[in-house]
Amino acid sequence: MSMNTYGHLFRVTTWGESHGPALGATVDGCPPGIPLCEEDLQHWLDKRKPGQNRFTTQRREPDAVEILSGVYEGQTTGTPIQLMIRNTDQRSKDYGDIAEKFRPGHADITYWQKYGIRDPRGGGRSSARETAARVAAGGVARRALAVLAPEIDIVGYMVQMGPHRADPANFDLEQIPQNPFWTPDPEAAEVWGAYLDALRKSGDSVGAAIEVRISGAPAGLGAPIYGKLDTDLAAAMMSINAVKGVEIGEGMASAGLTGTENADEIEMGESGPVYNSNHAGGILGGISTGQDIIVRFAVKPTSSILTPRKTITRDGQPTEIVTKGRHDPCVGIRAVPVGEAMAAAVILDHLLLHRGQVGDGPRGAIG
Amino acid sequence: MSMNTYGHLFRVTTWGESHGPALGATVDGCPPGIPLCEEDLQHWLDKRKPGQNRFTTQRREPDAVEILSGVYEGQTTGTPIQLMIRNTDQRSKDYGDIAEKFRPGHADITYWQKYGIRDPRGGGRSSARETAARVAAGGVARRALAVLAPEIDIVGYMVQMGPHRADPANFDLEQIPQNPFWTPDPEAAEVWGAYLDALRKSGDSVGAAIEVRISGAPAGLGAPIYGKLDTDLAAAMMSINAVKGVEIGEGMASAGLTGTENADEIEMGESGPVYNSNHAGGILGGISTGQDIIVRFAVKPTSSILTPRKTITRDGQPTEIVTKGRHDPCVGIRAVPVGEAMAAAVILDHLLLHRGQVGDGPRGAIG
Amino acid sequence: MSMNTYGHLFRVTTWGESHGPALGATVDGCPPGIPLCEEDLQHWLDKRKPGQNRFTTQRREPDAVEILSGVYEGQTTGTPIQLMIRNTDQRSKDYGDIAEKFRPGHADITYWQKYGIRDPRGGGRSSARETAARVAAGGVARRALAVLAPEIDIVGYMVQMGPHRADPANFDLEQIPQNPFWTPDPEAAEVWGAYLDALRKSGDSVGAAIEVRISGAPAGLGAPIYGKLDTDLAAAMMSINAVKGVEIGEGMASAGLTGTENADEIEMGESGPVYNSNHAGGILGGISTGQDIIVRFAVKPTSSILTPRKTITRDGQPTEIVTKGRHDPCVGIRAVPVGEAMAAAVILDHLLLHRGQVGDGPRGAIG
Amino acid sequence: MSMNTYGHLFRVTTWGESHGPALGATVDGCPPGIPLCEEDLQHWLDKRKPGQNRFTTQRREPDAVEILSGVYEGQTTGTPIQLMIRNTDQRSKDYGDIAEKFRPGHADITYWQKYGIRDPRGGGRSSARETAARVAAGGVARRALAVLAPEIDIVGYMVQMGPHRADPANFDLEQIPQNPFWTPDPEAAEVWGAYLDALRKSGDSVGAAIEVRISGAPAGLGAPIYGKLDTDLAAAMMSINAVKGVEIGEGMASAGLTGTENADEIEMGESGPVYNSNHAGGILGGISTGQDIIVRFAVKPTSSILTPRKTITRDGQPTEIVTKGRHDPCVGIRAVPVGEAMAAAVILDHLLLHRGQVGDGPRGAIG
Repeated sequence: MSMNTYGHLFRVTTWGESHGPALGATVDGCPPGIPLCEEDLQHWLDKRKPGQNRFTTQRREPDAVEILSGVYEGQTTGTPIQLMIRNTDQRSKDYGDIAEKFRPGHADITYWQKYGIRDPRGGGRSSARETAARVAAGGVARRALAVLAPEIDIVGYMVQMGPHRADPANFDLEQIPQNPFWTPDPEAAEVWGAYLDALRKSGDSVGAAIEVRISGAPAGLGAPIYGKLDTDLAAAMMSINAVKGVEIGEGMASAGLTGTENADEIEMGESGPVYNSNHAGGILGGISTGQDIIVRFAVKPTSSILTPRKTITRDGQPTEIVTKGRHDPCVGIRAVPVGEAMAAAVILDHLLLHRGQVGDGPRGAIG
Repeated sequence: MSMNTYGHLFRVTTWGESHGPALGATVDGCPPGIPLCEEDLQHWLDKRKPGQNRFTTQRREPDAVEILSGVYEGQTTGTPIQLMIRNTDQRSKDYGDIAEKFRPGHADITYWQKYGIRDPRGGGRSSARETAARVAAGGVARRALAVLAPEIDIVGYMVQMGPHRADPANFDLEQIPQNPFWTPDPEAAEVWGAYLDALRKSGDSVGAAIEVRISGAPAGLGAPIYGKLDTDLAAAMMSINAVKGVEIGEGMASAGLTGTENADEIEMGESGPVYNSNHAGGILGGISTGQDIIVRFAVKPTSSILTPRKTITRDGQPTEIVTKGRHDPCVGIRAVPVGEAMAAAVILDHLLLHRGQVGDGPRGAIG
Repeated sequence: MSMNTYGHLFRVTTWGESHGPALGATVDGCPPGIPLCEEDLQHWLDKRKPGQNRFTTQRREPDAVEILSGVYEGQTTGTPIQLMIRNTDQRSKDYGDIAEKFRPGHADITYWQKYGIRDPRGGGRSSARETAARVAAGGVARRALAVLAPEIDIVGYMVQMGPHRADPANFDLEQIPQNPFWTPDPEAAEVWGAYLDALRKSGDSVGAAIEVRISGAPAGLGAPIYGKLDTDLAAAMMSINAVKGVEIGEGMASAGLTGTENADEIEMGESGPVYNSNHAGGILGGISTGQDIIVRFAVKPTSSILTPRKTITRDGQPTEIVTKGRHDPCVGIRAVPVGEAMAAAVILDHLLLHRGQVGDGPRGAIG
Repeated sequence: MSMNTYGHLFRVTTWGESHGPALGATVDGCPPGIPLCEEDLQHWLDKRKPGQNRFTTQRREPDAVEILSGVYEGQTTGTPIQLMIRNTDQRSKDYGDIAEKFRPGHADITYWQKYGIRDPRGGGRSSARETAARVAAGGVARRALAVLAPEIDIVGYMVQMGPHRADPANFDLEQIPQNPFWTPDPEAAEVWGAYLDALRKSGDSVGAAIEVRISGAPAGLGAPIYGKLDTDLAAAMMSINAVKGVEIGEGMASAGLTGTENADEIEMGESGPVYNSNHAGGILGGISTGQDIIVRFAVKPTSSILTPRKTITRDGQPTEIVTKGRHDPCVGIRAVPVGEAMAAAVILDHLLLHRGQVGDGPRGAIG
């Protein structure tokens, strides 16, 4: 990853500001011959789109993606795919105040300090609106995966909102699309709904934790020592706006375990090794085991809140700020499809990398 | 990061296996004119070196580093610095069993599946011995930082071992080098000592959490959107052997906070902005604020334990394995200098990147 | 350079096909605070634009560039700059024949063999139309250079067309914009005009050699051993469509010289070293000397000619092809601004790289 | 390519100075399971080794390569391969004079200006001795090619020395190893021998041109637009010490051709397309055609000559220099195996890249 680009062979560069004319992603290195049309991508953008229920910002952007290059007669050609999303609902008037004041928790102050110039309209480049480009690029990765490794399934869901955690005992993946929080625990969804309504009315916001499960990935993806699969997944998730922590498998809780507890014992199954637990989150030594790959990340509460907070102006004068405008009380909700998109891009990239260095499929047979 | 390389302008490639003739790091992009000698690096390697107390492996390696290139008359020349550490204590006989059996929790099975060949002696490339090369390279980064940004201080310490957490109320940074766990909480050190003695006797192991604090870093390090400072720190830490989670500032706990709680309010101090809290861990929008940068990571328990665990052979036959040999009961202890080294390399890299794109120092003044 | 991206810190990714909706360049890593508007870029695009005189294709594209991101209130913000050029004159009907036949000298056959799919309309991604994106990106580099190193001047010109070479004795740089061939030799311009008229009427085409002179660049740009300034210039020029050779200074002719002839002796001038010749083309050991940097490249004759040539169809059937449509008889003419643009991007990139690793300006004083 | 690294998936980082303890190459991304031992590499190093006949420097280095990592039981493991060559014949006394004076044509002055420090012993990092590391790394690439694409053959040879060109009519590839110049033209070898004897006695030196022919490479290697096969070959060759020009196929001479002359007509052969000429040098649009790939480069005359040349000291004082010591009168001779090595590395890299993005082999069938 560097500057505005991620990926090794499947490489994505995003561009654009919240309130400029457009934003998008330049996707390079996609395999040729992959069926791809705008509707394929729109499906995922709609999942992320604001204004879909009372829990997300009421900014209404159609977020319609245009494919400007790299596709011919419905198939990828192997050349760069340019994905552009026009910004249509740019109410810059909402943001006048923040050109002079630095919003706590936002990148206003750091962009200013670094660059000596910043686009304050809607947060400019640091706006979470950038994640629309990620979702579009992730849609391309999903299409390529559907051809190259159709057995792979990637699904994200919320597992914690503020003090309330979902209960793994209630997990039903089919519930995910049936509630506004993309959670597999329907009981949690109810609790969260009431909790978030109250928060929203008070002008406050809250954090969340998202888990992404990648199932069906073959053993052998990833590489020592810095190109590990978990390294790239961690970087991918940490690069998402407002993310402050990333975990693989047991994650931070592994600090609390003993070796006896943590070992995932191995047995021989019908079609290869099986493990009697998955503390490792599907990755050993940076390389996939064939188990479900489990990555989890925490999204901090939206920094734009109605509670007045102390800050300073560009001139160094003390002041207060209340961030009006249309903001998600829990930006973690819309981070679910973003996490999925990043996972898809990383997995595809590692499939291509593995194929490049080693060839198709795992190389060492067992049994 | 890719394959065995990390960094953008300050770039480190490590090489070598646990029981080969040597391992090392190729360090490219170091600024010229930095005073550097082998003793500078040896200092940090000694901190990581095994066999220093009863809580680390009794494998006795001098871990003596040789500088083979890139230094002339005691100064870096700007050309690649080759750091080589000879392996001297290679008791391959200890490892005979594991050539055929896959140790649970280790990379044995995934290296085999990926490559169809693996060096089983001591874990080969996947051995934590590789971290010696990181520590050596981090020592170079520290020397460069001492010249370019002497106000930066990087210190790592253990904050959790198994179920026992250090108490921030007890924190005294001067305590860190005075106990075998590199913890600033002397009370925790006592508890952990007794706890680990018991574990060691039972042949078990335990996880740990390490925190690295970077103070004195200027505002403005990092870059949107994928080259964020926290993205690179997360990747750097996740790439360390046995790490399963990485946090910046509040980390995973930010999922549990409200926006009001999480906001780090800004005031004007004598020499620039000051913040009345640091939930953000010193990074906003991927760019440093000038506050302390706080990164934390969890190290899973050593997978080599004396408790028999179920596994399979390369032929797919069920078996059991007990990993004899000399192993750290808490590999997290020796991860402390490794985390520091990775932090030093990332910070130096971002100083150079910032200087490249923007010039020396922050560019936007406040007040 | 990799896939569709070039540059290290100043990084350009181009995208788009000849007859798709648009093409463009994603420019990342530009320093912040650089004044930039569309007119700045249009100036250079107009220089490259077809249809300006009888010696270039009559395809009429306004080649109007839009800046979609990375600029705020007339200044670069340090974030990605998206430059888009709409394709407006897409007469696909001209190209029906070539979907089935491979044009000799074109990439039709290799794109097909590599990808199993190709966009045949106007050559798709392999069309020289891609160079419009290079010119736009080079315009950004020029603006940054004007701020960071205003003493640098970059000028390209044609030095050979077919059998006719310009005579260095006639060189007058002020003549360059005054003839359709961008040549400093007015006598050559006359000869070439008559020669090209005849060729054009016969439906044939011809090659050319272009030289780019970069004056005013400081000593110290470039780096050992693979990041040499001449390495990057060679790659930059060789990546331009139809280029088959690249030379620095004496170039291929250095094979014919003795060491005594080739040595550029050094004397001390008023403001530093001066050289009594420049066989080296301003680069020693991959690093600039402060002399004029001289790079030269050969552009093969346009492969689209009216003379029937033998070829095969996708089915492997023998056939003949005559490439109708609107084609430059000497594509080298329009390669002049492209070479300048690539040079500007490379020089800016190396200025930033040098500043990153070493700091501003040369580091070792002489005298 | 950047700093001291080249390649995308097969990546080589070289390190070391002429008179330091050692130099070498860190080779990352090699496919696993490739048979490899030190003798395989020594074969190529011996070809490059100085002191083999009266036309190369009498510095006597055994240039014995050690494999320090990445190989287990005679096979590559897919992890980094460290290749180290000890410097044994370091007569630093020969070089005392040049610490203060800048040798014309050498990188002494530019390294000093860039870094403010340089290792003057034997040219330090800028010495052609670095090419030993290239040759070793190229030997690894050759072994991998022998497994992955055994039909590929790479051979380099000298085609020009000073004013004397080899005559293609005399070409007999079997002659190449039978003369000290690696030329396929036995008549040229005789002329050059006499010519070089005279030059050597007069203390002068001379340039040369080398051609590398890669036969048997499949169609489809390379990628638009900046990751072209010819772009990477050009960069690879230009990065070799003393190289000032690179050509593909017709090269610079293509500036002098008409389109009718230059077209390589296509016919259908028994096993695919055949071309009735190869002006393109086996590459169209940056992608291999399946024809022989022809790359040629010019090596300038050795700058170390016995003729006194004017120069300055570090203090800016005028002086003269005569470069004593042991130097090749035609450094181009030993550049032959270096060019072959670079070609091997580039071709392997592109095979892996193609396999990564597209899969094994060409994708579009013809006929």
